[in-house]
Amino acid sequence: MERITIVGLGLIGGSMGLALKRAKGMEIIGYARKPQVASRARQLGAVDETAGSLTAAVEKANIVIIATPALAIREVLGQIARHLPRNCVVTDTASTKEAVMEWASDCLPQTVSFIGGHPMAGKETSGIDEADANLFMGCTYCLTPPPGASPEAVQSMVDLVELIGANPFFIDAAEHDSFVAGISHLPILISAALVSATTKSDKWPQMSRLAATGFRDLSRLASGDPIMSRDICLTNRAAILRWLDDYIGELERYRRLLAEGSEELEEVFVRARDARQRWVEDRNREAS
Amino acid sequence: MERITIVGLGLIGGSMGLALKRAKGMEIIGYARKPQVASRARQLGAVDETAGSLTAAVEKANIVIIATPALAIREVLGQIARHLPRNCVVTDTASTKEAVMEWASDCLPQTVSFIGGHPMAGKETSGIDEADANLFMGCTYCLTPPPGASPEAVQSMVDLVELIGANPFFIDAAEHDSFVAGISHLPILISAALVSATTKSDKWPQMSRLAATGFRDLSRLASGDPIMSRDICLTNRAAILRWLDDYIGELERYRRLLAEGSEELEEVFVRARDARQRWVEDRNREAS
Repeated sequence: MERITIVGLGLIGGSMGLALKRAKGMEIIGYARKPQVASRARQLGAVDETAGSLTAAVEKANIVIIATPALAIREVLGQIARHLPRNCVVTDTASTKEAVMEWASDCLPQTVSFIGGHPMAGKETSGIDEADANLFMGCTYCLTPPPGASPEAVQSMVDLVELIGANPFFIDAAEHDSFVAGISHLPILISAALVSATTKSDKWPQMSRLAATGFRDLSRLASGDPIMSRDICLTNRAAILRWLDDYIGELERYRRLLAEGSEELEEVFVRARDARQRWVEDRNREAS
Repeated sequence: MERITIVGLGLIGGSMGLALKRAKGMEIIGYARKPQVASRARQLGAVDETAGSLTAAVEKANIVIIATPALAIREVLGQIARHLPRNCVVTDTASTKEAVMEWASDCLPQTVSFIGGHPMAGKETSGIDEADANLFMGCTYCLTPPPGASPEAVQSMVDLVELIGANPFFIDAAEHDSFVAGISHLPILISAALVSATTKSDKWPQMSRLAATGFRDLSRLASGDPIMSRDICLTNRAAILRWLDDYIGELERYRRLLAEGSEELEEVFVRARDARQRWVEDRNREAS
């Protein structure tokens, strides 16, 4: 029987537990910094057992999944390094991969394998109570094995990803970080900035009454876990800065057309609509 | 029996027809520039009858609802002005109100009343086939009567709004435009710019595979009707420019914190999350 340890029992760690438990045939050990979170995870059936300490949690584990915010991963790796069983596969679920891969290479012994992971799934809410066994169904799950990773370790990650209903997608860590900076991290900043720009207005109390579904959707990512968002920014700074500059440049272009009252605005909106339509169609095709 | 004419049978005009038809007790006449759209509206039951011309459509109407994109309203007003029955109430559904109020005051005779309207409801899709009798249920419906509007005309608009399940909200046209510029028009530009900034990258074909629910929600408004978006920009230029400048300023503040790797980023995300949470709670309280 496989023994899988999940460190960090928030939305992602908890959902991972629920999804794996449904698949059966393995024992899930959970560890969370706050004991009440761990017992809640057990109560919800996301883990079979909770461990009192990080080192006890990883004992005899075949796979260790670190599902904490990005910056905490370094610390966790440092603490578990000397306690990991031989041939153990260690993975994470953070939104940035280059920094994590470096920490793993610095901290972990040669006797274990680290394969970076990032499920492209989420909700705007966070915490164990939001955990959902279906969170990863059909999602793309990025895997970033380091050069020379053991084929057996890679295979066990592929098996794990498929077990929870997701699609493994191998990608270089640096490339991953530059891609998600545009399609995932930039949107977080865009969304938070919309909320901070509008709610700081002295007209907000009246304006807010008119805010409807458009505002709701555009501001959704602002409701995400602030620690997660901060860690994403701090671990993927260069790539996000590049995308933010491109994006501000694009807004300045829109601003010029608007100031001129240019008819070209129509063309801009047509192109954006068509580009999104193509993305939606590609996505639906892949899903079917 | 009340006779209501709807000019423009897209998502909004069509949904208005379906909602009114469900309420019963009135005759709905529809007009669309494209005859095939008008017959589709009739087929879907959004109107009882279609008219062959604009002037025939408004004949004997008690209420005329102009549900075209904003810039087309001026032309419609000019064409129907001399054909409107005495005491007819004319309204529109455009997202900007100051320009429309001015056109109405310029074009319409003293024998009719114009009350501006704007339902705060929508979908990212457009067209008669997307029409939905429930589109306005529970939504805020802005009404901008001009100074000295007839109380009877105002009352018939309140009745109409309540009939389709929406909540009338009286507001000054200029104030309306400045508010919606922030919570509705700025989000359209933000969304379209996200799509144009990302999809123009030569890495887009690979990146797009990783785009998930965050990108989907943030880009949703980019799928709206380009003519509607263009008209919003051209009729609410000054207010949108002010908001766009505020927003770019906010993004630059985020950029500075990011470039410095500042811990203050956490505080920024906490404040945005809390501000959105308050809005969501206020909204739920009002709905209940």
